[in-house]
Amino acid sequence: MRGDPFGLHRVIEPKGKLPQPAWKVDNDTSKVYDNEILIDVIKLNIDAASFTQIKNEVGKDEKKIAEKIMQIVKERGKMHNPVTGSGGMLIGKIKKIGKDLKIDANEGDKIATLVSLSLTPLNLKKIAKVHIDKEQVDVEAEAILFETGVFAKLPDDMPESVALAILDVAGAPIQTARLVSPGDTVLIIGAGGKSGVLCCYVAKKYAGPTGTVIGLVHSERSIQELTELGVVDKIIVADAQDAVGTYEKFLKVNDGKLADVVINVVNVPDTEMTSVMCTRERGKVYFFSMATSFTKAALGAEGIGKDVDMIIGNGYATDHAEFALEIVRENEKLYNLFMKKYG
Amino acid sequence: MRGDPFGLHRVIEPKGKLPQPAWKVDNDTSKVYDNEILIDVIKLNIDAASFTQIKNEVGKDEKKIAEKIMQIVKERGKMHNPVTGSGGMLIGKIKKIGKDLKIDANEGDKIATLVSLSLTPLNLKKIAKVHIDKEQVDVEAEAILFETGVFAKLPDDMPESVALAILDVAGAPIQTARLVSPGDTVLIIGAGGKSGVLCCYVAKKYAGPTGTVIGLVHSERSIQELTELGVVDKIIVADAQDAVGTYEKFLKVNDGKLADVVINVVNVPDTEMTSVMCTRERGKVYFFSMATSFTKAALGAEGIGKDVDMIIGNGYATDHAEFALEIVRENEKLYNLFMKKYG
Repeated sequence: MRGDPFGLHRVIEPKGKLPQPAWKVDNDTSKVYDNEILIDVIKLNIDAASFTQIKNEVGKDEKKIAEKIMQIVKERGKMHNPVTGSGGMLIGKIKKIGKDLKIDANEGDKIATLVSLSLTPLNLKKIAKVHIDKEQVDVEAEAILFETGVFAKLPDDMPESVALAILDVAGAPIQTARLVSPGDTVLIIGAGGKSGVLCCYVAKKYAGPTGTVIGLVHSERSIQELTELGVVDKIIVADAQDAVGTYEKFLKVNDGKLADVVINVVNVPDTEMTSVMCTRERGKVYFFSMATSFTKAALGAEGIGKDVDMIIGNGYATDHAEFALEIVRENEKLYNLFMKKYG
Repeated sequence: MRGDPFGLHRVIEPKGKLPQPAWKVDNDTSKVYDNEILIDVIKLNIDAASFTQIKNEVGKDEKKIAEKIMQIVKERGKMHNPVTGSGGMLIGKIKKIGKDLKIDANEGDKIATLVSLSLTPLNLKKIAKVHIDKEQVDVEAEAILFETGVFAKLPDDMPESVALAILDVAGAPIQTARLVSPGDTVLIIGAGGKSGVLCCYVAKKYAGPTGTVIGLVHSERSIQELTELGVVDKIIVADAQDAVGTYEKFLKVNDGKLADVVINVVNVPDTEMTSVMCTRERGKVYFFSMATSFTKAALGAEGIGKDVDMIIGNGYATDHAEFALEIVRENEKLYNLFMKKYG
């Protein structure tokens, strides 16, 4: 039997919604439709905003985090954090390919899903281990990928956990490359994070020798790492939730000029205004953080009369997975950093 | 005494936030800082998403709507709907201009504030009348405009209520003009609304004779009005919350092709996926509705592997007020429609 290409046939409530906006999906993996892929899941990579929220709610405790994840999946049939609205992604082995699908992969291949966990039916049997620092979870589980779902075969030149960490934020580097032009001044808010270092590297590559990349980090700890990577021209240590304070620091560091492009990849709420204030008139703000509030951005820019283009980070772009993996492969320092942190 | 240009000095909680993201602002209008403007408020224009939410919560009852508005302002010091996060704008007479301000207006001038009510300190004394169909409220109130606040003098060639209705959605027409190129296929979701008809007109103007503008409306009632205005090439009647159903209708009407630009100005939640699905690969979606969810848009596009640019509607753009008023002045049918509805 054939299911809907977008997965409508798995939606339990509310009926008629797509699986992502739906509250609950059918995660019964004993039936697999002819245009679905069944995955034997190895690891979940929880979205950073979601993981941070859970950690703040239940504490930095492996067992409690595992319980919370089990509870969410039990309620919703998917790892869709009801507070942040975000998911993450997973890696696993293809267990079965529906007979109506023609895909460039075989049963047994290891893949990463490139669609959010927030729409992926997940039959979560057991959590074996929570890796708090990696925001990854080893599991016994099965998942369903719909016909329109996107996945990537895992590369064989790096550990799974490293590929998973990169692919989780695969949208950010390619979108940065699209936005940044030679000579641009680029501010990366959340430069010390996983997504942040990739964006800094790409921004520097595309802004070129006449451009300036400024990384905003939350704590002194990130300074050394970013400096060693050589991916930023300047670093600001600031609290991105303090819009006015950060704006003043940024102006000071950047000789009183505002940024052409601001890329926000910080995983905390209430940083919209900082992003808007640091951008020049007719400049661009790219919001990649899942903690972004639409109304705070829209009304905030209007509130201070700032004519900027604000873009919603799209986790998908054509060839984004290959682009992100290549970015890490081409730079030895970046590769070593990911190996050290996620290997 | 001078206040902060962004209004930080009026924030009560949480301290350090800007007035828009803040929960509560100081609406004491007995003191006016030297860089503030005091306004004798005549009318509030409640944001459509906010007004719809209040109407749904308390019923289509003038008295109850008035009570709800009074209650919100009492709690927050501003008309900032806690559910939708949105505000609206106001018109009034300039009562006092702080001595440090140099502005192109005088005490006694009638102005409309072009910053959201969600950040405007409002000392609301009395609600005289709620105009349910116009989403406008006659009030006795005083308001404060900060140094960075934007306002427009009211034009003298149209009634106040008409100017207010146009200025409330002033961002939409100019942003549409920026996005649409000759030959584009443009879908306007919520074409029957106030913002929708302006966007349709501008889209048609900029897409030109080789372009196609398709208006999506919720009820048959809007068909005649839109047809008479002559601002759309085709009309679809559909429920924008039903993504798959609307997508199929759109494809049918548009000969199987997707839109280059989708402009979403519908004031209900859960229409993100409809917008994304109806857009071609590398096309653009402009979200103007305050009911838009950031995560639903971001994860929804990723979920179906759709490489589109999604833009957060900015209510402010350089010269947006003059652009919007001119758009209505230049087209007699549009002018008459606004006179009929809001005059």
